Amino acid sequence: MPHTPASTRTTVRRGANRAVYDDDRIRSILSAGLIAHVGVATADGPIVLPMAYGVRPVVASTSDGDADGGDGHEVLVHGAVANAMLRAGRTVDVCVTVTIVDGLVVARTPFHNSMNYRSVVIRGTATAIDDPDERLAALRVINDHIAPVWDTARPPSASDVKKTLVLAVPLTEASAKIRAGDPIDEDGDMDGPHWAGLVPLGTRWGEPTTAADLRCDAAVPDAVSALAGRDAHAAN
Amino acid sequence: MPHTPASTRTTVRRGANRAVYDDDRIRSILSAGLIAHVGVATADGPIVLPMAYGVRPVVASTSDGDADGGDGHEVLVHGAVANAMLRAGRTVDVCVTVTIVDGLVVARTPFHNSMNYRSVVIRGTATAIDDPDERLAALRVINDHIAPVWDTARPPSASDVKKTLVLAVPLTEASAKIRAGDPIDEDGDMDGPHWAGLVPLGTRWGEPTTAADLRCDAAVPDAVSALAGRDAHAAN
Repeated sequence: MPHTPASTRTTVRRGANRAVYDDDRIRSILSAGLIAHVGVATADGPIVLPMAYGVRPVVASTSDGDADGGDGHEVLVHGAVANAMLRAGRTVDVCVTVTIVDGLVVARTPFHNSMNYRSVVIRGTATAIDDPDERLAALRVINDHIAPVWDTARPPSASDVKKTLVLAVPLTEASAKIRAGDPIDEDGDMDGPHWAGLVPLGTRWGEPTTAADLRCDAAVPDAVSALAGRDAHAAN
Repeated sequence: MPHTPASTRTTVRRGANRAVYDDDRIRSILSAGLIAHVGVATADGPIVLPMAYGVRPVVASTSDGDADGGDGHEVLVHGAVANAMLRAGRTVDVCVTVTIVDGLVVARTPFHNSMNYRSVVIRGTATAIDDPDERLAALRVINDHIAPVWDTARPPSASDVKKTLVLAVPLTEASAKIRAGDPIDEDGDMDGPHWAGLVPLGTRWGEPTTAADLRCDAAVPDAVSALAGRDAHAAN
């Protein structure tokens, strides 16, 4: 992948030493995340809502026309909540933020306490996917983001697809921030009496449980049982 | 606590059966969360950033004057990133969203796939805390949100406090959404051949690790060692 420079809007102004803009790193974090927090500006103030998402190579018809988008990727966000964001029309300016918390950073002084984390901030224009076939394809990408369960389920009906809004946002204005490792304290505190260190945060999928109302004898799909015991935020 | 009705801005329009507005429930979710996603509208589009936060009873001087705030609580968000949000002045409209993912919901059809989650959405005016003593007190609330490590660290210097911006947002326009339990499928799918169930997501603190550059023989503070093995999102 070509390196994508951050746009002026997504240049990380603080903690720039923690900022990375490499496309593969950005997509790796997006792949390891579970939900996105999507922000829009509304007439009565900003609103931020959690949403399922997925990432795929840009489909020409969902491109916002930015030449950079042509050979790049896009994030797809899903959820009827998006309806509220689109009262103005078929496109809306959004910020899509995905954050993974990896641990607590305990410094010698609270001023330097922090978290270890991986985050991606994507700013851009979200475009609703209108074509039913394209929407179906986009829904599959979102559906299979955490586990590929699409193929073992009853396919969506045409009306299911019609009822589900999907937005595409090009990954052309994306920045990533990663904070890892020990606390960084001030020289004046290094000979002090205070402890410093990390507390890692582990996020793992548990054993699947079958719905109480399942009437058939269907086995747990492989894609679902494969999650058990897995680090939910494993880098890849 | 008195029940706080949702404002029109925070009324949950979809999945209303999942919506709860009880103050104690809202604060329980905020207590179980680790980071907030804070959204603001800027001249060049919305932006959503992850931030540390804390919750406390409203301090009169940080109240935005809303009478409801007087006997309520406020969320404090921290981080110099907030500077970018305050170019316009000492207050800014924000949306503070805290989301905890509890598991993956696998339905008989992708249209009903979901996540089990707990989330709180707070909309309101964020006010910068200017008074140094009040800011110090607010920083302590944020610092101790995950673990009370303030007392075992070197106290912040006056310049530390000066450099750290803290915003207070009253919890008067807050709504909570909780999704728990098995998937809910359509009657027509109940006799089908497809599996349905849950995959729980567990989030636990690991064993603390001491910083490689620690020169003193300070023991791991009790507040830190107490995290080890704990459910990081335990309801309380």
